[in-house]
Amino acid sequence: MPLTLERVDTRAAILDAADRLLARYGYQRMTMDDLAREAGIGRRTIYLHFKSKEEVALATIDRTIDLLLAELRQVARSEGSPADRVHRMLMARILFLFDRAQNMAHTLDDVYMALRPQYKHHRERYIQGEVEIFAEVLREGQELGVLEVDDPHAVGNALVVATSSLTPFSLSVRELGSRDEVERKIRRIADLLVHGLVR
Amino acid sequence: MPLTLERVDTRAAILDAADRLLARYGYQRMTMDDLAREAGIGRRTIYLHFKSKEEVALATIDRTIDLLLAELRQVARSEGSPADRVHRMLMARILFLFDRAQNMAHTLDDVYMALRPQYKHHRERYIQGEVEIFAEVLREGQELGVLEVDDPHAVGNALVVATSSLTPFSLSVRELGSRDEVERKIRRIADLLVHGLVR
Repeated sequence: MPLTLERVDTRAAILDAADRLLARYGYQRMTMDDLAREAGIGRRTIYLHFKSKEEVALATIDRTIDLLLAELRQVARSEGSPADRVHRMLMARILFLFDRAQNMAHTLDDVYMALRPQYKHHRERYIQGEVEIFAEVLREGQELGVLEVDDPHAVGNALVVATSSLTPFSLSVRELGSRDEVERKIRRIADLLVHGLVR
Repeated sequence: MPLTLERVDTRAAILDAADRLLARYGYQRMTMDDLAREAGIGRRTIYLHFKSKEEVALATIDRTIDLLLAELRQVARSEGSPADRVHRMLMARILFLFDRAQNMAHTLDDVYMALRPQYKHHRERYIQGEVEIFAEVLREGQELGVLEVDDPHAVGNALVVATSSLTPFSLSVRELGSRDEVERKIRRIADLLVHGLVR
């Protein structure tokens, strides 16, 4: 089926409904019937877009990461030195994911637990998406001679990995602690990493 | 019951047996009967030491972390500048856990999944144990004026958190990749972090 505007809207409506239901009931208790009712469409229409509940839930995470990448791109192309932008990007990735996770604090862990096997395959793609945006800025800093970067892709990967244990994918939302606490922790790590990059 | 030498030996024998069985069968399929047989003792003797299978499995992880802490302490008190020791400690924590996880590559994920709720409470203690050893070396670097450290405990925590996504507790053993790959990744992160610390 071609991707008409109507089709895009329906897909978005299903994902919006899934976000609400996952926050309210968690993954296990959400059914495709609930989803149809919440989205205000027929059950069969959902199946035109998604093969299974798993696919819907993974698509909500995909969409979150797309939004994160859009935000990172914006910071990457904003004003400021490359070091400053890298620092803001590291802060942004952690706080964006933290804020998104708050809506579904009680159920996010349940979603990840249930989808862990399928989710693994998506995870690598998410990481690569972020790494590419970091690599852009690192390359710029390398060309300007202000950052000590031998391999922008490898360094970008190191930056993403070094901050990933503060994401709600690694620690449960409760384990992460308050936003202030997370902000303090990511600032320390970003300070160290960026200081380590500056010539 | 007092902690006599015999009691310590029995406890160690149970944990050794549990390590072997967890590697062979995984957590779900291991029973207390298997454990008694493998350790060559009576089922009731096990219950003098551990209340449940969960307790045994958590105790095997506790023991692994105790060994890690012993290794870190050794590096912390070895020759070399504080920066050099911090670097070696970061490498050591990741490669030690990687190597330990290899014995049970097929079952470690299963153990963590099953014990996740109880394991959370232990995790904070593990992290604090490591942080204290890092803080010792950081304080030394601070006093010598060679490291830029305002708060040794907070910086130690940042170092541990920034490398934790490369542990088999965060990523499954398969996701971590080969030892060479892990070594390359941790070296990059350790380089950045330690470079970020040096005055």
